[in-house]
Amino acid sequence: MSQYWSSLLADLSPYVPGEQRVGGRVVKLNTNENPYPPSKRVMQAISDVDGTQLRRYPEPASKELRNALAQYHKLDATQVFVGNGSDEVLALAFMAFFINEQPLVFPALTYSFYPVYCKLYKIPYIELPMSDDFSIDWSGLPSKLGGIVFPNPNAPTGLACTIDGIEQLLGNNPSKIVLVDEAYIDFGAQSATSLVARYPNLLVTQTFSKGRSLAGMRIGAAFGHSDLIAGLDRVKNSFNSYPLDVVAEQAALASLEDEQYHREHVSKIIASRDWLTEQLEARDFKVLPSAANFVFAAPSHIGAKQLHEYLNKRDILVRYWDKPLLQDWLRISIGSPDELQLLINAIDQTQSSNKDGAR
Amino acid sequence: MSQYWSSLLADLSPYVPGEQRVGGRVVKLNTNENPYPPSKRVMQAISDVDGTQLRRYPEPASKELRNALAQYHKLDATQVFVGNGSDEVLALAFMAFFINEQPLVFPALTYSFYPVYCKLYKIPYIELPMSDDFSIDWSGLPSKLGGIVFPNPNAPTGLACTIDGIEQLLGNNPSKIVLVDEAYIDFGAQSATSLVARYPNLLVTQTFSKGRSLAGMRIGAAFGHSDLIAGLDRVKNSFNSYPLDVVAEQAALASLEDEQYHREHVSKIIASRDWLTEQLEARDFKVLPSAANFVFAAPSHIGAKQLHEYLNKRDILVRYWDKPLLQDWLRISIGSPDELQLLINAIDQTQSSNKDGAR
Repeated sequence: MSQYWSSLLADLSPYVPGEQRVGGRVVKLNTNENPYPPSKRVMQAISDVDGTQLRRYPEPASKELRNALAQYHKLDATQVFVGNGSDEVLALAFMAFFINEQPLVFPALTYSFYPVYCKLYKIPYIELPMSDDFSIDWSGLPSKLGGIVFPNPNAPTGLACTIDGIEQLLGNNPSKIVLVDEAYIDFGAQSATSLVARYPNLLVTQTFSKGRSLAGMRIGAAFGHSDLIAGLDRVKNSFNSYPLDVVAEQAALASLEDEQYHREHVSKIIASRDWLTEQLEARDFKVLPSAANFVFAAPSHIGAKQLHEYLNKRDILVRYWDKPLLQDWLRISIGSPDELQLLINAIDQTQSSNKDGAR
Repeated sequence: MSQYWSSLLADLSPYVPGEQRVGGRVVKLNTNENPYPPSKRVMQAISDVDGTQLRRYPEPASKELRNALAQYHKLDATQVFVGNGSDEVLALAFMAFFINEQPLVFPALTYSFYPVYCKLYKIPYIELPMSDDFSIDWSGLPSKLGGIVFPNPNAPTGLACTIDGIEQLLGNNPSKIVLVDEAYIDFGAQSATSLVARYPNLLVTQTFSKGRSLAGMRIGAAFGHSDLIAGLDRVKNSFNSYPLDVVAEQAALASLEDEQYHREHVSKIIASRDWLTEQLEARDFKVLPSAANFVFAAPSHIGAKQLHEYLNKRDILVRYWDKPLLQDWLRISIGSPDELQLLINAIDQTQSSNKDGAR
């Protein structure tokens, strides 16, 4: 605390991302990174950037990437926004649309950046209770609300909403913006981008960080009615004219062009997720049915906190939150087959050392 | 305007950057870009980034770059902040320190993004009148103020404040933050980073866009007391955990390592600025003494607006603002010697065609 800090600054509760421990032997299953590198075409596009492109400012709207994304999702370019990772896109969307006296609504279990944005912008919010099966219970939606935001699939549960459920939500709240955060959409859930043309109150965000292996490159996007995109542009152009650098834009374009690579590697991750789910269930874990590149799993033979610490000491990083609703669970990112085998081996060691215990 | 726009959104006046017209024959002297590409070591560092770095999130604080900048400026790493271009760093600094009931003060002629940030955050502001010689007249500083921000050298005038003047301002306003925006510091003015250790109310911002030829890469920094940097980190971590991508960080590190290249090319730009100033003065332009990589110049034989249009039609882009105080002037970026010769040739054509006019 400093005399130069405002009360706003002092009251913030910044987001804490998963640890970025580096080193060759770390099995990093804590930040939902893709175990596979991006396509070679992406690496080539990065090497091909020349000095003239770097000495010049980027085209401020990243039109080339907006056009490519519009074509990919069968939308118009005026329905596409891009930014410096989907976290920035969400931060700008909250600023553009949710600063409001009425509360923003999101699930009690969700991406933990949402309440952080709300504190930053002084947005009141209501957390919707979860059903017993960890799905989102929309029946408790208040009649007066400033907007709705949720990830699909949800984090950290991995559970997906149906497209019909989303459409119902949009139709029931026509005067409020519904923001569907599709960070994990590539791994099985159905994208709401198909509803953009019909619902002017829908905003969808996506990222190149997960399915496209470009977390290090910071590329996010939003899709919605052109009025919403124009609103996002107004805020972006009042904050930072050029959020996307020229290398990131070229990397994103190359990634979109190599659809075969993308599909193949997403399929591998889904296959690994199925394998990990089986292995964990065989060891008496509860595992929620995931549509994401992680599983949400509760061990029965050992406490989740204890298992988290055990794994952490062996340089196997998974995510744990010591909070009500979450404290019995671990979120485990889908790593490579080798990494997942190392995880299972380590879990088996805790089981053999726990033989006389709960099992 | 849309039913989903808040009144805040509707009232914004977004920043309008200089046109990014592309194409081989454009003489682009409108956005203060560096005419020289970045060092080969920068290009190599970009090519050397591998797929594992890209599939993973960046280290969120960009510690490696903060450490390198600390060493470069003889500061502690806790006195260094980095972000996605100095525009983002400024946007975060305004959010962290200037949201206040008392007005922020900046010169009437200055970087036109400052009032844009103020509108975004509803910060009241006072514009300090300019002296007749276009220097900043600090004598008019109000007794009640929320903070002070100005570029050194100033934009679009190119005029520099002395380090003594800045120190006086810091000493006279110990309870208020003085933000010195040093986007153009490489081209002759004295940096206030040397005052960071002594003034806890000083924040300095810099960019890799101008002197280091990396406008396309989006890298900015701030220097100040560790309490101010901690405040910036709180806001950054409430907005976007990873504003700097891994390629940008590696490019910035390589740029800092090639100091000789940096100095040589800054010297070339200063020599070109001197040449352009002489050429313009020989043609009866008023030219302010610039410490930046642009000159602020007023033609006498033709209106500034008319000259701007004439040049624009010939694909020679310079910056013109049709506003009081600015309407007789052009801001001309220091391009390559060839580009500046093309500009002078074009100006000579207007002089010969204007022979019977004002001259």
